[in-house]
Parts: sequence; C-alpha cells; structure tokens
Amino acid sequence: MKLIRFGEVGSEKPGIQLSNGDRIDVSSFGEDYTEAFFGSNGVGRLAKWLEENTDTCNRVDGAVRLGSPICRPSKIVCVGLNYAKHAAESGMSIPKEPVLFFKATSSIIGPYDTVILPKNSTKSDWEVELAIVIGKKASYVSETEAMDHIAGYVLHNDISERAFQLEREGQWVKGKSCDTFAPLGPYLVTQEEIENPNDLNLWLKLNGKMMQNSSTSDFVFNVQEVVSYISQFMTLLPGDVISTGTPFGVGLGLNPPLYLKNGDVMELGIDGLGVSKQKVMDYKG
Amino acid sequence: MKLIRFGEVGSEKPGIQLSNGDRIDVSSFGEDYTEAFFGSNGVGRLAKWLEENTDTCNRVDGAVRLGSPICRPSKIVCVGLNYAKHAAESGMSIPKEPVLFFKATSSIIGPYDTVILPKNSTKSDWEVELAIVIGKKASYVSETEAMDHIAGYVLHNDISERAFQLEREGQWVKGKSCDTFAPLGPYLVTQEEIENPNDLNLWLKLNGKMMQNSSTSDFVFNVQEVVSYISQFMTLLPGDVISTGTPFGVGLGLNPPLYLKNGDVMELGIDGLGVSKQKVMDYKG
Repeated sequence: MKLIRFGEVGSEKPGIQLSNGDRIDVSSFGEDYTEAFFGSNGVGRLAKWLEENTDTCNRVDGAVRLGSPICRPSKIVCVGLNYAKHAAESGMSIPKEPVLFFKATSSIIGPYDTVILPKNSTKSDWEVELAIVIGKKASYVSETEAMDHIAGYVLHNDISERAFQLEREGQWVKGKSCDTFAPLGPYLVTQEEIENPNDLNLWLKLNGKMMQNSSTSDFVFNVQEVVSYISQFMTLLPGDVISTGTPFGVGLGLNPPLYLKNGDVMELGIDGLGVSKQKVMDYKG
Repeated sequence: MKLIRFGEVGSEKPGIQLSNGDRIDVSSFGEDYTEAFFGSNGVGRLAKWLEENTDTCNRVDGAVRLGSPICRPSKIVCVGLNYAKHAAESGMSIPKEPVLFFKATSSIIGPYDTVILPKNSTKSDWEVELAIVIGKKASYVSETEAMDHIAGYVLHNDISERAFQLEREGQWVKGKSCDTFAPLGPYLVTQEEIENPNDLNLWLKLNGKMMQNSSTSDFVFNVQEVVSYISQFMTLLPGDVISTGTPFGVGLGLNPPLYLKNGDVMELGIDGLGVSKQKVMDYKG
C-alpha cells in the first residue's frame, strides 16, 4: 500500500496511490497519517477499509501537490556515516556504532516542493536516503523484533548545509534543520511491499547528472540494527522517521566540492519507493 | 500568569496556578497548551478569559500530579556550554557561537515524576537550566525582536548520560534523549512576570546538598542572542522549547565524577519559576 498526502501546504489530506498509479482521497476513512494512526494499526485498518471503499473514494488529479506522506512526526532521527565510502569522502572513519543526530521536523516538505537555500548558505548539499517510518512504539527492542516496529519506508533527501554542520561550533543539527531541508515522499510504502530494505538501489541526479548511485546493501548498520540501536537510547513513537544515512557521491566529497545553487534541480529515487524532484532557490526574505 | 498541566500521564488537563498558590482547572477554556494555543495568542486570550471565569473554575487538589506545563512541542533545542565555568569543568572551551543540540520530546516528564536511569547507564548527570517557550513563530529574527517571540519560561532539568553523550561515537543527542530525561515545570511563567531572564538565580541540590548555584547573568549567550541565533538555522514554532544551558556544578565536573544512582533525589529551582524535585530509579524492564 502506498500512502500519500495531497493538497495545499498545511491542509494536506490523506490518500492512497493505487497500483495502477491512480490517486484516491481517503479523507472519509476519518484519520490523517499521524502518531495515533500508526499507533493503532491504522495501516491494517485502512487496508481493510479500502477493500470495501476504494471505488467510492474521489480520484485526486495528478496535478495536485503532494505533501509529506506522514503528518509531522515527534522526531526525525538520522544515522550518520552509514555507508563506508561516504564516511571516507567526508574525511571520517567508519563508526564502530551508529552515529545519531536529529533533524527538526519543521524542515519537512513535500517531494516536489522547492528547496530554499537558507540565508548565508554557501555549502548546501544533497543526500538521498532510505527513511524508516515507525509503526509501533519501540523501546529496547532487539534486532529480531525490530521489523515488527516498522510501518514502512519513504524516500528522503537529507539536505545538509556543510558549513553550518561542520564549521559552526559543534553538533550537526545546525546544518540539518533548515526549513525545506527534508523532502519526504512521494509516498510511504508499507512494509509488506518491500521484500528486503537492506537491498535497494538508491540514486540522486543533480541537473540530470548522476551523483549518487548505490545500494542499501552497502549499509554499515542495516535497518534492523539501526532500529534496535536507537531504541536503546530513546523511545521511538509511531510515525517517527529514521533516516538511514546517505551513500557516496555528495557534493562535499567532490574535488573541488560542489554545492547547491539557485536554479539547480535534484531528482532522486529508491527501488519501490518512487522518485522525487526538488528545484533549488535562494532565500528571498 | 503561571500555566500548569495536571492529571495522569497522557491525559493532562490545562490549569493555572494563581498568585495565592491555588490551582484551578481551565479545561472549560477549551484549549490545551499546544502549538495552536501559543500560536494564536492563547496566553493573551486566556488571561482575558480568566478575568471573567476564574471564580467558576474548579480547584485542583494539591495532591494531583503535575505534568509538563506545555504539550509536546515540535522540538527541544538545547544550547551547550553556555556558562563559562561549566565549559571549563566539561573540559571544553567557551564556544565562539552557540553550540546547539536537540533532545527528543519523548523524554519530557512532569516536574515531580521519577527519573529512570536507562539500561546500561553508568554516567547519568543533572543539569538545571532556564528554558524558553516560544510564543510566536521565529525565523531570522534579530536580537531586538527576539523577546516578542517568547511566551514565557520554565524550569528544566536537562538530564544527560555522559557515556552515551561523549563516548558512544558522536553527537550528543544520544545521551540527552532517554525517556524521563526532561522534567519540565512546575509551571510555565508567562513573560510579563519575569523582569529580566538574564539575571535569575538557579540551583540544584542532590540529596539535599547544593551542587549547582549560579545565575543566568553568567550566560555566554543571553536569551535574546540565543533565540535570534537559532532562528537563523531553523524556524522556531510556537510552543517550542529552548533550553539555555547549565551552569557549573554537574557530576561530570567533580573530582572524582559523581553520577546519579537509584534512590537519589534531585531538587532544583530558578527565581520566579518555582522548584521541581525528581527521585531517581533504576530501569526495571
């Protein structure tokens, strides 16, 4: 099942993208894709409801804007340096255990929305990532239990201002949390559709040129390990997003480095999770 | 005005602590202390409503549990090393600009709730802090505008597992986000009651012994500077919490270091913001 949210910023409605590509409005199910929805087996209940109600749902025009396929989560936890070659290009060593940082949830936008370069940004960079969406509260879960706590997966561009992140007195959150820095979607794909999240190709093109092209099979820490690990330090709530790190090929790693500028277009995708595309614009105060 | 929330965990109701110390239930105002409340001048509207309705509100028994005085915010942004002597005791230098990190909002508890030491914790530590609550969306605000974006202030114990924070492969969030690690309250004091947030005594006792005893006049970066600074990197939403850092006297800085153990009691306070008290217990799975 592919969950979407559509409509104007701030007033998105829940929908489903059907296997034939049609989009339907499931507002009449009566729930948005929130913590309460995921935490009460909303995915299972919605699937059952659709068996009876798909035909009566309104179709959504293909021109309608898509928002993030999940409502604002309680947190976005990100895993740093989770691909060996990306750690190397960042000038860092492969971590012995996952590096964690947060991204402000106020940075979330839809998959085709515009990315705004923050004021004084000189080093904004792209990062295609597989993001996990939590389906069931997770505290001290083992790796074998981890999969039971996942609702599904979503494509994420973990945009990062490298000067803010690395040159401005500590803690990466500063370069990760700018408004528009977390395009999510096009859709949340529920777990049963993804056979193995640890073996998915993922890629990102900048202005049509392939910059990142790798596979989650290169993870240092895989999906189960990451969920279990984070749950040793904090409770993951239904709807929470875990972004699993980016592979080799970011702008920081090029020689000379290359960063985003006004007019650039990023296009990115992951097997089974669709494609997103963001235009880049300068901040206009 | 002093905003409280009272009742069982997860079903707290909004209330007010009156100047005579009585607590009243303001559920009939019809709003909890959420982003929507703060973002729509809820503080001003509630003050006006109370002029007519205080006498008809139910009194809350003093034995009723207090929760966090604000509903779960979109984020808790913390400032690190914001007192010179604390930076020194942490073995770090005074930052040239604010160090920022996040705390998971799932770590929030009430002011008298029990703090649970996480599994495998060996270095859990106390940190009394002045926390700011945002009243109006803040993006790229100047220092002179900053005060207009503040709803009020609240006492915060920024509990920190030092081994998780400093010895576990990077980014402090890992030691800051454990469940129960953010006792907030007893109440949110609205801005008009605090003449100068940059000149408040703050203290913390462990088992009756004074460990931290300082003043926010020792801030490296004051309230206005911190709000303005953070708003250059991300949008602060109404209800968001900014914790402004802890003064000298944490367990990490003692020789030998001293950390929290089962049965310990922390008591802490800030001028005008009341006192909170938490008992410490081991995790029982």
